[in-house]
Amino acid sequence: MIANDTFLRALRREPTAHTPVWLMRQAGRYLPEYNAVRAKAGSFMALAQNPDYATEVTLQPLARFPLDAAILFSDILTIPDAMGLGLSFAEGEGPRFAHPLRDENAIAALRVPDMQSLDYVFKAVAQIKRELGGRVPLIGFAGSPFTLGCYMIEGSGSSDFATVRRMAHARPDLLAHIVDVNARAVVSYLDAQIESGADAVMVFDTWGGLLTADAYRKFSLAPMRVIVESVRDRVPAIVFTRGGGGWLRDIAAIGAQCVGLDWAVDLAAARAEVGDRVALQGNLDPVALLTDAATVAREAERIVRAAGAMPGHVFNLGHGILPTTPPENVAALVEAVHRTSRELRAGA
Amino acid sequence: MIANDTFLRALRREPTAHTPVWLMRQAGRYLPEYNAVRAKAGSFMALAQNPDYATEVTLQPLARFPLDAAILFSDILTIPDAMGLGLSFAEGEGPRFAHPLRDENAIAALRVPDMQSLDYVFKAVAQIKRELGGRVPLIGFAGSPFTLGCYMIEGSGSSDFATVRRMAHARPDLLAHIVDVNARAVVSYLDAQIESGADAVMVFDTWGGLLTADAYRKFSLAPMRVIVESVRDRVPAIVFTRGGGGWLRDIAAIGAQCVGLDWAVDLAAARAEVGDRVALQGNLDPVALLTDAATVAREAERIVRAAGAMPGHVFNLGHGILPTTPPENVAALVEAVHRTSRELRAGA
Repeated sequence: MIANDTFLRALRREPTAHTPVWLMRQAGRYLPEYNAVRAKAGSFMALAQNPDYATEVTLQPLARFPLDAAILFSDILTIPDAMGLGLSFAEGEGPRFAHPLRDENAIAALRVPDMQSLDYVFKAVAQIKRELGGRVPLIGFAGSPFTLGCYMIEGSGSSDFATVRRMAHARPDLLAHIVDVNARAVVSYLDAQIESGADAVMVFDTWGGLLTADAYRKFSLAPMRVIVESVRDRVPAIVFTRGGGGWLRDIAAIGAQCVGLDWAVDLAAARAEVGDRVALQGNLDPVALLTDAATVAREAERIVRAAGAMPGHVFNLGHGILPTTPPENVAALVEAVHRTSRELRAGA
Repeated sequence: MIANDTFLRALRREPTAHTPVWLMRQAGRYLPEYNAVRAKAGSFMALAQNPDYATEVTLQPLARFPLDAAILFSDILTIPDAMGLGLSFAEGEGPRFAHPLRDENAIAALRVPDMQSLDYVFKAVAQIKRELGGRVPLIGFAGSPFTLGCYMIEGSGSSDFATVRRMAHARPDLLAHIVDVNARAVVSYLDAQIESGADAVMVFDTWGGLLTADAYRKFSLAPMRVIVESVRDRVPAIVFTRGGGGWLRDIAAIGAQCVGLDWAVDLAAARAEVGDRVALQGNLDPVALLTDAATVAREAERIVRAAGAMPGHVFNLGHGILPTTPPENVAALVEAVHRTSRELRAGA
């Protein structure tokens, strides 16, 4: 039993008293208490791999703000790390793999990892679930097969992921193999998160928007459909392709209960386009949180009103919260979403 | 009179014997003969500000490939440079302004520059036009008011232009003033390019896709409409918003004869969405040119076929050609576009 199940009800497009809100990367560097734990852990991976620390930072934003969901603190790259690619995060830089997929042999040798090696994630899910004590739902997550592939092939972040895009054109067979292995790994990974207590799952497709429409359908959307089909009858699934605003109809058709929207999408137009087939999640520009409480409240109200009276809106950012965000603006945001959506339902 | 007016006919959506093709940044660093002139000039700005050099590099790709249009070699940031912001290009880096718009006083002081200070651009247009001798049309261009504003406010390139986006949320009045001044400057600038011989003009909105849908309409699309309305009765106008695939219907409604598409857009879906209102330009992923001739030809054919039999397609890349592109792949591309489109028209 979950005391505040507003988030789950919105995912099922049932009426709710207010619009539920949570924020991508809500446990993170904008919170001093997060940075304190991060410093104690010594490294990002040490933080993510320790279920006590992961539980602590997952719950931190809920202590500050009346958020309607918790999301597991972890990283999408735990899976390729478990595949043996050797993940590290250098200070002040992004992720880096010691053994990226540089040749056909490495790609052919790729295997779904033993989920035992990811047990630290499932332990964290179970511990968070216990400590939440049924206050709000817990979201599990994974990277999309294509987005994982981006880092596995490129070996690090990139401004354009040109190596991956070149592979999509020249060696589609290799990229298809990589995303197929990744899809099977994500299926097992989310299955174990659900077994451990996740109440909903989200698939983050951060880089699918870099593909051509054809390649997106083949290398990102199709493997996400495999994942969605494996989870959707047990818990609600949210899929989010950053830069996917031009493909919403296709994305809404893969069976996920909810589609995440980046900030470039007009929420009212998106609702008109996908009809009542899915819930929609989003989509405040994270930069709006760098302004002031009055601006934040105004933008929140604009988005709540754009989502309209039809059930099935989960308020979120259009991308992860920025490390320079003042926590008091997050408080203003959550308050404004709750207040405005209650007013809207009251006919104001 | 223009011997090969295929490009202009396609912009007017008249039938053509083949699909015309030109490439964004077709005069550029992937050509050794360009790099030789660039080295002789000493700096990028010295190259752009010398009409002889600008003419020479504009014509270089036409000597190699049977392209259907020439485009003025210049830079979108000539306008803010003429406004006194002090443009420079450090070696191996992007553009940088010595005096970015850092406060309200600087923004209030912003003026449309005297076009006399941009005479080197108009001289280049006239000289290129003469040396082209009517072989193919010459495209003039400008940055969009918003994209110019991005660099003017941020002072350089940026991965996310957070300063500009924050201004859109917190001080929309300031951003509105900047794009208004920029729009009036672009109107004068393109007017002079047309007077000097440009046969068509293109407005590059490289960063409009970073905005929310609301802000895009206000700060990028509305000022582009002002520009399009001032030129469209004299020469055809092409507008291109990178990342604008979700807003095609709005973009197609501002009066430009042609809408440029980035590589994420499904060309057939775009045509279905905008109907026969505009010509469409695009949209090969520039990374496809880093593969091999057979792959390039296959991708070219896919796009030509997606554009279909309806008149009004100009083949181009979905963004600028990459410096690492092998010139022989460009030759393969132009050949494939011409051949495939002729076959398509013959019913093959």
